[in-house]
Amino acid sequence: MRINMTHGSGGISTRDLIKDVFAKKLGNNILNRMEDAAVLQMDLKSSGRMAYTTDSFVVTPLFFKGGDIGRLAVCGTVNDLLSMGAIPKYLSAGFIIEEGLPVADLENIVSSMAEALKESGAMLVAADTKVIEGRGGLYINTSGIGTVHESVQPSAYNLEAGDAILLTGTLGDHHACILSHRMEIENNIASDVAPLVALCRALFDHGIRVKAIRDITRGGLATVLNELSEASGCAIHIHQESIPVREDVASLCGILGLDPLYMGNEGKMVICVSQNDVKKALELIQHAAYGKRSQIIGQCREGQGVFLNTTSGVSRVLHALYGEGLPRIC
Amino acid sequence: MRINMTHGSGGISTRDLIKDVFAKKLGNNILNRMEDAAVLQMDLKSSGRMAYTTDSFVVTPLFFKGGDIGRLAVCGTVNDLLSMGAIPKYLSAGFIIEEGLPVADLENIVSSMAEALKESGAMLVAADTKVIEGRGGLYINTSGIGTVHESVQPSAYNLEAGDAILLTGTLGDHHACILSHRMEIENNIASDVAPLVALCRALFDHGIRVKAIRDITRGGLATVLNELSEASGCAIHIHQESIPVREDVASLCGILGLDPLYMGNEGKMVICVSQNDVKKALELIQHAAYGKRSQIIGQCREGQGVFLNTTSGVSRVLHALYGEGLPRIC
Repeated sequence: MRINMTHGSGGISTRDLIKDVFAKKLGNNILNRMEDAAVLQMDLKSSGRMAYTTDSFVVTPLFFKGGDIGRLAVCGTVNDLLSMGAIPKYLSAGFIIEEGLPVADLENIVSSMAEALKESGAMLVAADTKVIEGRGGLYINTSGIGTVHESVQPSAYNLEAGDAILLTGTLGDHHACILSHRMEIENNIASDVAPLVALCRALFDHGIRVKAIRDITRGGLATVLNELSEASGCAIHIHQESIPVREDVASLCGILGLDPLYMGNEGKMVICVSQNDVKKALELIQHAAYGKRSQIIGQCREGQGVFLNTTSGVSRVLHALYGEGLPRIC
Repeated sequence: MRINMTHGSGGISTRDLIKDVFAKKLGNNILNRMEDAAVLQMDLKSSGRMAYTTDSFVVTPLFFKGGDIGRLAVCGTVNDLLSMGAIPKYLSAGFIIEEGLPVADLENIVSSMAEALKESGAMLVAADTKVIEGRGGLYINTSGIGTVHESVQPSAYNLEAGDAILLTGTLGDHHACILSHRMEIENNIASDVAPLVALCRALFDHGIRVKAIRDITRGGLATVLNELSEASGCAIHIHQESIPVREDVASLCGILGLDPLYMGNEGKMVICVSQNDVKKALELIQHAAYGKRSQIIGQCREGQGVFLNTTSGVSRVLHALYGEGLPRIC
């Protein structure tokens, strides 16, 4: 069976789709009430601080090695909340479905969302479905709410000269995976899409003062570092030899003339801590899920701009991504 | 200038678009930080209750008499929060833009959002932009957070026999407006799209016990009443002669064989209160913005199902919308 326009009418077909697909996989005691909004009992602790974010996902293909648009939609929002020092609690999802999408595909995508939510410890409490003309595509918007960890308040504005820059693993996997699918290149490159709750909690719960933390998505590491540098007024220097890249990703990049520093990831963070905390922080994230290949990749210095110290001993300026990365990788 | 794929790259073109269009019209001290998530200081009062909702908007055309997709995206989410007794505080917006959309159109849409937000007293604090292949279309997802009014906890489950049903104005305006645009029928029918904050606050602030409240969108009044009847286990009886319909909307419906009871609205609520409160409630909403044509249209009784007492003296069953309403009216 495929989705058709009546599934978006707001009538009985819509309700059947919601019951048979969405509620079946994602249902919980809040979502199942199917009211116009979820009413949540929030415990914001003494700080009263809450993080709130949104992201839309338009990736093609919908299914790829290592994940699908559903896992991506949950992990993207979860990782954005973690980037503000917040523990993800509640998510919303808006599905824009093109007619012709096989219902079985939608079921698989929704199941992936359920798994990623479980792994994240977050709950989907609000959802919406629309059907549009088209050719079987799907767009998912998620938003998310998290409670800000009491001892943490990361911000790009916190950075100062001397701080260390950590990277939680290999660069470019997601981007290279999607590109391989789109160009029909056969290889074993899988997306790194993952919810980094355990990795971040390891730092937050052990009292590491995380000065800044960002997930490295569109625009890649170089673009994120430029944002951090601009906001903080510090220069950032990184060392090429310390940046992990999978061998097959490096080969693909070599052939296509791509630079992993500008490629999107969906399960990687850049984390900034003071020199006092760096050893302990590295140990914690290397032992957490999805953090095994974490590395110290550089440091903040007086000045401005982002610099790459290459393996050949030269230092070159890294600008933010200018033109087009790969469209629709997330 | 038109939107092209580089505007979605995550690089400098994306940042320029965000600065020149989104931040210019929608900017505020939270959004302007451009971090991965907004950190909000929430005062949830003693109840600790918060409402959270999401909705995607895929209407075509993007501009129509009385509004555009931007006003719709704000009002839809604001009205969903009000439907749970919550005062809208913070919104997020995810823009999925098809390449080819004129930037001037986007600016107008974003300006409408800013106006609707101002009228609602809510603030946009999180946003995201993606660009996809296409023909100049635009989809907007909004989510919203509201603080639940301390004395109010509306729910379909509260209804009981004897309660009165109020309708805040004419039915079918939005649906008829969009349909007229799509069929290129010339008339003066304007969408009713509006944020109903003042109208709902009039009830909440004056201590009216709002037992249930729903905005009447896709599926129309008949579908909403069926949802209320099913959830509460009450029958609902309404009177045809008390249901306001604009003359030009009624004419259009007559020609096309449509029933205003099944047509979507974007600025209408159905409100249920006990008989003790109904007189005061009607007076309050008739004096609030967008409530002038409010009416008492029926009552809850023992039993089940939804019934329409027609002007010819017959009572007929009103089922929920089954097949296709008009696609893409919101």
